[in-house]
Amino acid sequence: SSTLDVKCIDTVRVFSADMVQAAKSGHPGAPMGCAPMAHVLWSDTMSYSPSCPEWSNRDRFVLSNGHACALQYSMLHLTGYDVTVDDCRAFRQLDSKTPGHPENFCTPGVEVCTGPLGQGLSNAVGMCIAEKHMASTFNTSKFTPVDHFTYVICGDGCLQEGITSETSSLAGHLGLGKLVVLYDDNNITIDGSTDLSFTEDVGKRYEAYGWHVQTVSDVSDLESLRTAIRNAKLEVNKPSIIKVKTIIGLGSSKQGTAKAHGAPLGDEDLANTKKHYNFDPTKFFNVESDVAAHYKTVSTEVESEKTRWDAMMLAYAKEEPALYAEYNRRFNGELPAGLLDLLPTFAAGASDAASRKLSEACINSIAEKMPELMGGSADLTPSNLTSLKCSKDFQKDSPDGRYIRFGVREHGMAAICNGMFAHGGLRPYCATFLNFAGYALGSIRVSALSRFGVVYVMTHDSIGLGEDGPTHQPVEMIESLRSMPNCNVLRPCDINETNAAYQIALEQSGTPAVICLSRQGLPNLAGSEVAKAKMGGYVLRDVASPDIVLVGTGSETSLCYKAADELKAAGINARVVSMMCMDVFDGQSEAYKKSVLGEGIPAVAVEAAAVGSWNKYSHVQICMTRFGASAKGGDLMKRFGFTVDNVVEKSKKVVDFYKSTACPSLFARPVFDDEVAGGH
Amino acid sequence: SSTLDVKCIDTVRVFSADMVQAAKSGHPGAPMGCAPMAHVLWSDTMSYSPSCPEWSNRDRFVLSNGHACALQYSMLHLTGYDVTVDDCRAFRQLDSKTPGHPENFCTPGVEVCTGPLGQGLSNAVGMCIAEKHMASTFNTSKFTPVDHFTYVICGDGCLQEGITSETSSLAGHLGLGKLVVLYDDNNITIDGSTDLSFTEDVGKRYEAYGWHVQTVSDVSDLESLRTAIRNAKLEVNKPSIIKVKTIIGLGSSKQGTAKAHGAPLGDEDLANTKKHYNFDPTKFFNVESDVAAHYKTVSTEVESEKTRWDAMMLAYAKEEPALYAEYNRRFNGELPAGLLDLLPTFAAGASDAASRKLSEACINSIAEKMPELMGGSADLTPSNLTSLKCSKDFQKDSPDGRYIRFGVREHGMAAICNGMFAHGGLRPYCATFLNFAGYALGSIRVSALSRFGVVYVMTHDSIGLGEDGPTHQPVEMIESLRSMPNCNVLRPCDINETNAAYQIALEQSGTPAVICLSRQGLPNLAGSEVAKAKMGGYVLRDVASPDIVLVGTGSETSLCYKAADELKAAGINARVVSMMCMDVFDGQSEAYKKSVLGEGIPAVAVEAAAVGSWNKYSHVQICMTRFGASAKGGDLMKRFGFTVDNVVEKSKKVVDFYKSTACPSLFARPVFDDEVAGGH
Ligand SMILES: [Ca+2]
Ligand SMILES: [Ca+2]
Repeated sequence: SSTLDVKCIDTVRVFSADMVQAAKSGHPGAPMGCAPMAHVLWSDTMSYSPSCPEWSNRDRFVLSNGHACALQYSMLHLTGYDVTVDDCRAFRQLDSKTPGHPENFCTPGVEVCTGPLGQGLSNAVGMCIAEKHMASTFNTSKFTPVDHFTYVICGDGCLQEGITSETSSLAGHLGLGKLVVLYDDNNITIDGSTDLSFTEDVGKRYEAYGWHVQTVSDVSDLESLRTAIRNAKLEVNKPSIIKVKTIIGLGSSKQGTAKAHGAPLGDEDLANTKKHYNFDPTKFFNVESDVAAHYKTVSTEVESEKTRWDAMMLAYAKEEPALYAEYNRRFNGELPAGLLDLLPTFAAGASDAASRKLSEACINSIAEKMPELMGGSADLTPSNLTSLKCSKDFQKDSPDGRYIRFGVREHGMAAICNGMFAHGGLRPYCATFLNFAGYALGSIRVSALSRFGVVYVMTHDSIGLGEDGPTHQPVEMIESLRSMPNCNVLRPCDINETNAAYQIALEQSGTPAVICLSRQGLPNLAGSEVAKAKMGGYVLRDVASPDIVLVGTGSETSLCYKAADELKAAGINARVVSMMCMDVFDGQSEAYKKSVLGEGIPAVAVEAAAVGSWNKYSHVQICMTRFGASAKGGDLMKRFGFTVDNVVEKSKKVVDFYKSTACPSLFARPVFDDEVAGGH
Repeated sequence: SSTLDVKCIDTVRVFSADMVQAAKSGHPGAPMGCAPMAHVLWSDTMSYSPSCPEWSNRDRFVLSNGHACALQYSMLHLTGYDVTVDDCRAFRQLDSKTPGHPENFCTPGVEVCTGPLGQGLSNAVGMCIAEKHMASTFNTSKFTPVDHFTYVICGDGCLQEGITSETSSLAGHLGLGKLVVLYDDNNITIDGSTDLSFTEDVGKRYEAYGWHVQTVSDVSDLESLRTAIRNAKLEVNKPSIIKVKTIIGLGSSKQGTAKAHGAPLGDEDLANTKKHYNFDPTKFFNVESDVAAHYKTVSTEVESEKTRWDAMMLAYAKEEPALYAEYNRRFNGELPAGLLDLLPTFAAGASDAASRKLSEACINSIAEKMPELMGGSADLTPSNLTSLKCSKDFQKDSPDGRYIRFGVREHGMAAICNGMFAHGGLRPYCATFLNFAGYALGSIRVSALSRFGVVYVMTHDSIGLGEDGPTHQPVEMIESLRSMPNCNVLRPCDINETNAAYQIALEQSGTPAVICLSRQGLPNLAGSEVAKAKMGGYVLRDVASPDIVLVGTGSETSLCYKAADELKAAGINARVVSMMCMDVFDGQSEAYKKSVLGEGIPAVAVEAAAVGSWNKYSHVQICMTRFGASAKGGDLMKRFGFTVDNVVEKSKKVVDFYKSTACPSLFARPVFDDEVAGGH
């Protein structure tokens, strides 16, 4: 290592520690330990563009141990991204550009939200899938618009998390040769030495996954580190992991211990650390001129790669205008013109069908015209009905395929989709049974937080699935996802509503959609309308002066519909409301909501799921308050009260009840307009 | 293999296939492929007692690929458990003893609920931890009341799931030598060949975890299988996995293909399969006399082991009466007398403290007197504050330790606790940040379904945690868990309520408890009472003729308390209700609920979490409707409206609003008394 290399690295160390100290909060240890990796990545490894962080062919960098973000912010600052020293001084403060864990929507140069361990490395697997597929789609013998690596730094925590095992196994299977992971092997986790809980042979484990494994026994040996990265890039058939031995908090009095992990060094230790590195202990956020000049030179040089790429793309535009236009459309996230018109609608005489079948029809109606639709199932293809008739599997030797065999890896699947979305050029979808969204919840939450419009196709959405029993029957899952901010939960009742669900999912590219679909057959309902369904909730069937409003979703909507018939015979006028997406309905005007639900009319919600938020839009709920059971779906529907008879009986009692008791309006409450202060 | 062995195995195959065919639903392939393993386990490997399935020193058997349960039911039937042929005929039917996936509370001989893949093997790791710890506690030089193995059958799906990687790594670290896993290596998953997504070297991966790995290249070679199991038992320092090559659906026309996995064989194929095995195709659920006699002999012999153990325990009772009494107390799930009186209560002059600190005080007040309390944290001990001052770490060479270093493995941690609970003799607890309950949700759900009173200590329970930002700040998590059946979510506001939370958690041994605790300091509140808090919700502070009711939980309760002071100054009488556990409050009488919340009095809920169920108990909510942010906790509380000022301001507007609009009673709705029919 040159003297300047060392000085640069030490500057990154103390600059990061300064950030944490200024915030009086954060994680100095990993940045100090990993600074040499970051220096080598940004100085002489990665292609990137500080002036255009969203350059589509940049190398991707993911800090999977997101708590080390002071390191990333230091590098972004030093290499000329729009992250100023004042931004760094505001580390972890309200409205700063330097939050406590990386946020893609907050900081230029940050690709994904990391912090929940294991997500980042798994996102990187998705990015590599995206790169490989996009390259096979857009590169020609003459032009390579897509050709980049994905680099990851991760720590022990990421490698302990199960999600990482899932995605690492798949990455090995798929031979993702352009993935390079630097493992910060510091033998320390929060509880103390890794001897406490993590003594497996990580290198051997990754060899078992089919990875290329190397070790660098001292991170400060930059030549070894550079050589290892070079070798990793040369191994094009396997993902690479480099175990890099580091010392957490190197240079501080806490080095090599868990104490260096999650708290500021403290004024005294910070000063001594600076002295140790021959820096002035009275200076903060100091970057000496030779160090600043180095990173300025580096980032100027690296920009030239983007300049060459821009020139190449000019030629590409001329010689391959169709590909060029498509490339831009896809990276701009524009849907193909007229795409949504291809979705199927109700045809007279259509037979009953499970909504998972309707979903299959929707997917395949658009897939051919929407090449960016890419995804698959966690080994439930024949049940989720998510295969693409117009494409083949994405595999090691068929990167042009668009159907991904994720294996039984729900959590990893969702994180991979987040990575594919973050990469750009793709609209990922993925599938499992709705109840196993619980396995993937950590990543679905990251979709919502990161504003990634991943489409989750979740079938077998209630006790209606039958014999597989309570381990497979969701009860609380719909409410869990409805309560998650920026997540649309859609539960269509027939083909028109399934059409609308896919429209909402595809149009709202910044919001993940969870489409909940039945295993069992559902009747097509006269009265459902695509445009109305896109309002989230709407009057499916009206009557003059309703005595009661029946509100259903998905498989229970038809129950409400049939109950309304029987109630009519008993002299009770029932309006039927379909609440296909409560999240979208929540966003409608108070006036619209009142027009749907009425005021002072008793409303009964019918949904084979937890009650949760239904008190907001109904007076009485026919919902699930216990776990399901193993039996025929019809028997369970009967056992738990999801029958026309029970809806009718309860409705009569409700109407009776409100003859002697005033029925309160669901809207007799103040609405505050301040979005911020807890109002809603 | 003897001719009788073969006939027994073939009987199990067709008996299982008959079950699936009778149900017209289920999974014949794995039972048919794995029948030899089951035969060897039940015939000449395991200790068990059909007459006393709950015998505490039985070998544990876990079918991790729970969809293969027809196999387990066949074995339970043949070996004389209370699973009759009629029970088998009722496979997957309503109220049968043979549900579609194994349920511990439904079928004698079933230890845990499996079906969600990966849970079972992970439960088994917990069982082995329990066995090792209990052995170190209760065995003496003369007596070994605790000395058993844990056997698992699992498939490809279990080994693909991340949870299994987490718990397998920990099992290797802990050297759990009495764990024997038989891996049904059939090269098939639902989507088709494992070549589609699962080509890792499983054996090498398990060696990397520190396991003892063997291969049996043909499951029908019973001698090799028996030898491998014998070797696995002899290797006492490492968990063992045996890769057993099988053919899914062996003997049917669908053998070796995914078609044999998840659907009945069909009448014709079933008949041909029986012919293939030289059985009468017209007979169903047939067990010929020699086969029946074999299993009768086997199960009679195996009962003698329990008889010997019973005799040994008589001597143990005489010579070690204290240990014997304690052994029984613990396996009976009785709390030590007077235990809960040890929990701390409010002391005048107590300083403010984070509820995670109060939780630490609660745990350590009882831990010494409650040796069955055993658990730990997913590598967040210094943050969760869950260490046991009275004990050391449970490690390979210190099995008497009670503190478990789970590593960064939340999902596995929860599943291990389920296994420890299922084993008996222990009350497991475990900890992480509340938001990462999302990583563990699949297993928390199994706790709730299985009626395992695992105690989840979940700290950093809101935006109040501050700088770590939105990836770490729960919003929807509390509502997710509240909506889960049989799960108590407890969010105490001070020491008295934390005391009550632990009382509820420990007393309700059939319901998991999620105790949500603050990172930040909270004031002790005059008026909180342990006994009242155990009602779930109660009036913390009353006024004559309240104008408004403020309902808070956890860190927001004190906001309500202080807001009430300010409102009083403004001439508004505010009652303050603490809703420490909405789930427990839900179970109180309508009269009690009305006495707490009043009727026709405006109620405002204040909780730094999603609105969700709050519409049930309030007219207006000051809750979270968006993700949090990275900033000082106080700044975030202000930004999102969790300040005394905002509660006061909103309360005034609410009181004003209901001057001109009648305030509806929260109880003006019919309550149905049918527990089953969707009523609640
Ligand atoms: Ca580490
Ligand atoms: Ca298999």
